[in-house]
Amino acid sequence: MQFTSERRFDDGVVEREFTLDGIPGILWTPASASASAPVPLILIGPPPLGLGTVYARLAGRARYYAAEYGFASATIELPGSGDRPRWAEADRARADLRRAVAAGEPVGGELVDALVLPLVERAVPEWRAALDVLLALPGIGGPVGYEGGIISVGVRLAAVEPRIAAAALFAGSLVPAAIFEDARRVTVPLQVLLQWDDEANPRQAALDLFDAFGSAEKTLHANTGGHTGVPAHELDAGARFFARHLK
Amino acid sequence: MQFTSERRFDDGVVEREFTLDGIPGILWTPASASASAPVPLILIGPPPLGLGTVYARLAGRARYYAAEYGFASATIELPGSGDRPRWAEADRARADLRRAVAAGEPVGGELVDALVLPLVERAVPEWRAALDVLLALPGIGGPVGYEGGIISVGVRLAAVEPRIAAAALFAGSLVPAAIFEDARRVTVPLQVLLQWDDEANPRQAALDLFDAFGSAEKTLHANTGGHTGVPAHELDAGARFFARHLK
Repeated sequence: MQFTSERRFDDGVVEREFTLDGIPGILWTPASASASAPVPLILIGPPPLGLGTVYARLAGRARYYAAEYGFASATIELPGSGDRPRWAEADRARADLRRAVAAGEPVGGELVDALVLPLVERAVPEWRAALDVLLALPGIGGPVGYEGGIISVGVRLAAVEPRIAAAALFAGSLVPAAIFEDARRVTVPLQVLLQWDDEANPRQAALDLFDAFGSAEKTLHANTGGHTGVPAHELDAGARFFARHLK
Repeated sequence: MQFTSERRFDDGVVEREFTLDGIPGILWTPASASASAPVPLILIGPPPLGLGTVYARLAGRARYYAAEYGFASATIELPGSGDRPRWAEADRARADLRRAVAAGEPVGGELVDALVLPLVERAVPEWRAALDVLLALPGIGGPVGYEGGIISVGVRLAAVEPRIAAAALFAGSLVPAAIFEDARRVTVPLQVLLQWDDEANPRQAALDLFDAFGSAEKTLHANTGGHTGVPAHELDAGARFFARHLK
């Protein structure tokens, strides 16, 4: 891991860009983090638009977690996003999806699988490798939460990575059948955010996914509004969820 | 309104029992409430078990709202609950419901209507009359929130009573079709609590009711667990909802 920039804010939060095996990422640490008092870590999964595009949203959450709750946060670029190399299979799947949507055809299981599963299979090992490195840094001790991002990545990660102690997921994208199987194996506390009028995300599928999770403790927060209309108060609701579970 | 007892807690919260036109009730006021600095009011709708039975639950919420957020709260006994006179129609409806449930028959619309609508039609004018009196007390100024209780009472009250500025409803009981019509006329901010595994409360009907509300701003909090398993963290989530809207 090479740190490539460091920025210190008035409230003591430090933001550092890094690269890890060629993958760009960002780490935010609260003023309180030190080798003798390590803090919990939240992995912030980005949407697949490139960290440059979504920086303001992610940094806003990370700085809030750090300043208000003393959590460190980190994110890494998804495979195929930002400046990371695309691959032919993903481009083809995106083109197929666009074609189906434009033609008013139903977006069936095969299309969703082709679009999402290769991304999940590439991203999850990268997040796990990043976790190895992040948890070895002085001042970062765990436990670890995961939030945001493509929900299928979060579900698979929560299902296979025992260091994830709690997850706050955004039911904002199409979910392959295989991920429903992963959901049944998730047992950590969950908070799932659903935009009730999300145009591109079928509501019933999101409710079915919430139902499928194996976790004994899970909360669904559904709010009126479309995909980008998550109300501001959910930021603190998410932080409080982590405050209950990352101790 | 006659006050019949007064109790002052260490944190300055005052609990007063009262009767109003023969209806028993309880009022909680924070230490900060005064004629020159009146505070918002939360109406706490009780479940139909009698205030004596549910006192601890209601008082716990009211004292939290008062001590942590500076809100007054009040509740009144529902028609037919506690020591208030029952009426033959309600007894018959309850017996019919018990018989249907025991026989494993579906609980149809007519049964639900007979059980719930007469209660709504008696309770709502009582709550409105209580509101007249409560808002005339020194130290209580509004705005007014409603929370808890039989959801149909809360929906009708929010639909017809313009002084209700926000409502936190518990989707924990059967809802007549007429109340779905009321729900479409509700426009105030809402937070709806749903126990995902509530044995006696069909989940789909609760989701349909949430969908039916006319409010531009509404949030559903669904949690794993049965009817009585609402997680402790929802107390503060409800208080924060009111803190956003009762200003």
